[in-house]
Amino acid sequence: MTRKLVFVRHGQSQWNLANQFTGWVDVDLSEKGINEAIEAGEKIKKAKIEFDVAYTSVLKRAIKTMNYVLEYSDQLWVPVYKSWRLNERHYGALQGLNKKETAEKYGDEQVHIWRRSYDTLPPLVDDNVHKEQTAQRRYKLLPSDLVPRGENLKVTLERCLPYYEDHIAKDLLEGKTVLVAAHGNSLRAMAKHLEKISDEDIMDLEIPTGKPLVYELDDNLNVLEKYYL
Amino acid sequence: MTRKLVFVRHGQSQWNLANQFTGWVDVDLSEKGINEAIEAGEKIKKAKIEFDVAYTSVLKRAIKTMNYVLEYSDQLWVPVYKSWRLNERHYGALQGLNKKETAEKYGDEQVHIWRRSYDTLPPLVDDNVHKEQTAQRRYKLLPSDLVPRGENLKVTLERCLPYYEDHIAKDLLEGKTVLVAAHGNSLRAMAKHLEKISDEDIMDLEIPTGKPLVYELDDNLNVLEKYYL
Repeated sequence: MTRKLVFVRHGQSQWNLANQFTGWVDVDLSEKGINEAIEAGEKIKKAKIEFDVAYTSVLKRAIKTMNYVLEYSDQLWVPVYKSWRLNERHYGALQGLNKKETAEKYGDEQVHIWRRSYDTLPPLVDDNVHKEQTAQRRYKLLPSDLVPRGENLKVTLERCLPYYEDHIAKDLLEGKTVLVAAHGNSLRAMAKHLEKISDEDIMDLEIPTGKPLVYELDDNLNVLEKYYL
Repeated sequence: MTRKLVFVRHGQSQWNLANQFTGWVDVDLSEKGINEAIEAGEKIKKAKIEFDVAYTSVLKRAIKTMNYVLEYSDQLWVPVYKSWRLNERHYGALQGLNKKETAEKYGDEQVHIWRRSYDTLPPLVDDNVHKEQTAQRRYKLLPSDLVPRGENLKVTLERCLPYYEDHIAKDLLEGKTVLVAAHGNSLRAMAKHLEKISDEDIMDLEIPTGKPLVYELDDNLNVLEKYYL
């Protein structure tokens, strides 16, 4: 039996547009980002992919992408589950900073390392910022040490994978077709696991925004085929 | 402890506009219906009501209302659960018919009874229509005899209440603030139960569209206060 998993990376947000580091900041989609999500939904409809269940993060740019994809593929009734474990990589103290200004302050080389290294952490947020974040309603039921102060892809993968295993992989093994609408780095983390990509090579994998990525998987969830719609 | 439950009835659909009986037909919101949902969200934001959990039907006019309400009250991350048990009353063989033409064919009196009687069933759908409906993906995991051929408010209440009791009442008793975005008759069914309205009086209760209805409840879920935003 072939099992199907589809990733949709959310499109342009208002901070992509302003060239700011976003991470866990709950920034909205731009008009362009909305259109990318609608197009993704239309492509899924054209490909006649029917989902049994869908997963997204607790950040509105992913949730709205999910809602548009389901609306424009005419399957809004599909159950959707939201988890912080599918959130974007937490960019630590870089969140909210302009990327160009950050490069001027820390140097291109350092910013390149923060962006592209698998296991280098960004500068972490201080206690005040962390306290503000743990107080947010959507995170306040979590033990506060689960709320990150800054993540690399390695840490993102470690907090994302348990959710993948307990929910997404479980559904796939039950024969369900699964949609995940999420972020560049949470999707990259799951792609690394699925495609068995090395720590060295993973940062070269760039999942394009708004283009549904389809995995066809065997009974052990090995990738048989991978293609974009 | 005061517990809070908020109902939002979806606004105008494309078939309201065309004056057709809708029921379980999955008709979209009209532009006016979208604006009603957005206004409901803005009112909830202004009233600073924070939801822990939200429930809707498997019909897109309720789901889209839910999505707009959560977006415009800035709490898209809240978990949303969808169930056929919160669907609109099934209007049987009247579904899709123009209300004016139906009145000309069957007489005003008969149509009035179908619309306003608590326990008179509408004409039921035949086997073919029923088979089509049970084959729809969103219903095909249900025993086919659960999928109605036509409902009065009494039957709507009987299939809605178990869901209310198992999920909505449970959450309220746990202290959660709950949002339900649904339909005229599924909301009326729960209102009848909450407000202990008699079979005779319930058809006079008309919940306006797009106006959030707030119930404040005591520890036994008796209504302390009821008001519209």
